[in-house]
Amino acid sequence: MTNYFTEEASVEAVNGRMASDIDPRVREVMTLLVKHLHAFIKEAKVSQQEWETAIRFLTETGKICSQERQEFILLSDTLGVSMLVDAINNRRQPGATENTVLGPFHVAGAPRVAMGDRITLDGKGESCVFEGTVVDLDEHPIEGAIIDVWSDNAEGFYDVQQPDIQPKWNNRGTFVTGSDGRYSFVGIKPVSYPIPADGPVGQMLKHLGRHPYRPAHMHYIVTAAGFQKLVTHTFVGDDNYLSSDAVFGVKATLIAPYERVLGGGTVWRSPFDFVLNPL
Amino acid sequence: MTNYFTEEASVEAVNGRMASDIDPRVREVMTLLVKHLHAFIKEAKVSQQEWETAIRFLTETGKICSQERQEFILLSDTLGVSMLVDAINNRRQPGATENTVLGPFHVAGAPRVAMGDRITLDGKGESCVFEGTVVDLDEHPIEGAIIDVWSDNAEGFYDVQQPDIQPKWNNRGTFVTGSDGRYSFVGIKPVSYPIPADGPVGQMLKHLGRHPYRPAHMHYIVTAAGFQKLVTHTFVGDDNYLSSDAVFGVKATLIAPYERVLGGGTVWRSPFDFVLNPL
Repeated sequence: MTNYFTEEASVEAVNGRMASDIDPRVREVMTLLVKHLHAFIKEAKVSQQEWETAIRFLTETGKICSQERQEFILLSDTLGVSMLVDAINNRRQPGATENTVLGPFHVAGAPRVAMGDRITLDGKGESCVFEGTVVDLDEHPIEGAIIDVWSDNAEGFYDVQQPDIQPKWNNRGTFVTGSDGRYSFVGIKPVSYPIPADGPVGQMLKHLGRHPYRPAHMHYIVTAAGFQKLVTHTFVGDDNYLSSDAVFGVKATLIAPYERVLGGGTVWRSPFDFVLNPL
Repeated sequence: MTNYFTEEASVEAVNGRMASDIDPRVREVMTLLVKHLHAFIKEAKVSQQEWETAIRFLTETGKICSQERQEFILLSDTLGVSMLVDAINNRRQPGATENTVLGPFHVAGAPRVAMGDRITLDGKGESCVFEGTVVDLDEHPIEGAIIDVWSDNAEGFYDVQQPDIQPKWNNRGTFVTGSDGRYSFVGIKPVSYPIPADGPVGQMLKHLGRHPYRPAHMHYIVTAAGFQKLVTHTFVGDDNYLSSDAVFGVKATLIAPYERVLGGGTVWRSPFDFVLNPL
């Protein structure tokens, strides 16, 4: 019996075409992709014109991609897919610090900085001391944890977005904890910024009545032997965009206090402890 | 209550972000897209690495698109989405000729040809008379129906794919029926051909253990006042790829007889009646 395409059995027609000897995971993922994709088309009753609009949107999204711009990641971010993939792959025990999206601005190899040092090299922005302890689920300090941090500058740009203006490694650094698990460094109180909104994804956000802003945040990657890698941010607690992050990165547990410091050269202090999940 | 992103409520977090005053159809389609997209990610438990592969695949699919190449349409075709959209939007009464995909090679404005004329201009291929009647559901002939036909040449290429080699409008023409509803023209028995397989979609087909071939077919668009536009093919009944069309275009009712004609200059005859559905 030949399995010709019909509206009713569209999924079976497509998935039945796979050969029997292909990679089992390819089969599993593609079978589910076809199932859910067809279910979407059917439930939304997508018209021919809407389908053409979708094809055009994907084509333009591809066209704007370059070395410096990844519009498909932006699309994934703004539809909550990046956060969902992150969540599924980083389930943790209660009490462990939660993950959030890596974002496109991490650069491997940021300079090793001494505890307490300043990572802001352009002298701009409101200084802030970031400090706390890296601990396990029993609150024991973790020695030898590597903390990789990065943030935007006072104008909302990462150094890699302004290679001609900013000093290299501005607002970036890595630290290693001692036996007390403590970390501290001086950066700036980060500021909110829009994701690139001059392309197809920006157009999509407009049609959805959404703004392109991310609430101010400090990025962290914390790694230590025997523990799950933690990729996260801490968010500035009083930011206007906390409840409407364009990429859905905010989790309630990642909102950090920012306290005004009186006297001395530093203006803010943001304490935050990182609780690592065992492997 | 702020609706922060969680794995469990990921759909609500994303869809809850849409403004209240947006276009209702945009809201409906995007709400369903997010629902089904997240359901896919969750059920397939897509890993971070698989997600990166998907982003890379979409980016490469965008990169290969050009004036002459639409890889996203190929992707849609090979996943059965183009056929599904066509099916949903062209439901017909029993007995009416079924639609199939338009394909990327239709060119508007093909020359008007007299009934019985030859549309094959390069003298290659096995000649075939195509003939039949355009009728309504009660089998009454339809006068003034416009029949727009096109096929590949004997090497499996459409004229637009070989602009320097083929005569323009080779294997293309339009006809208008008289009061008897009859049509006839001389073309060639079409041949099977592969869809472009040197890009990301070709790679995908390889991973799925699928070939890129379409069974031989003659394209038709039949229009007449008071009737639904019919976009379809007739397929060559003994083609090797009938049960494995790379784009799922075959329907059992569209397989046409091809009879050998003895004597005279023509080698084949393919009779087929088109039954139009009222608007």
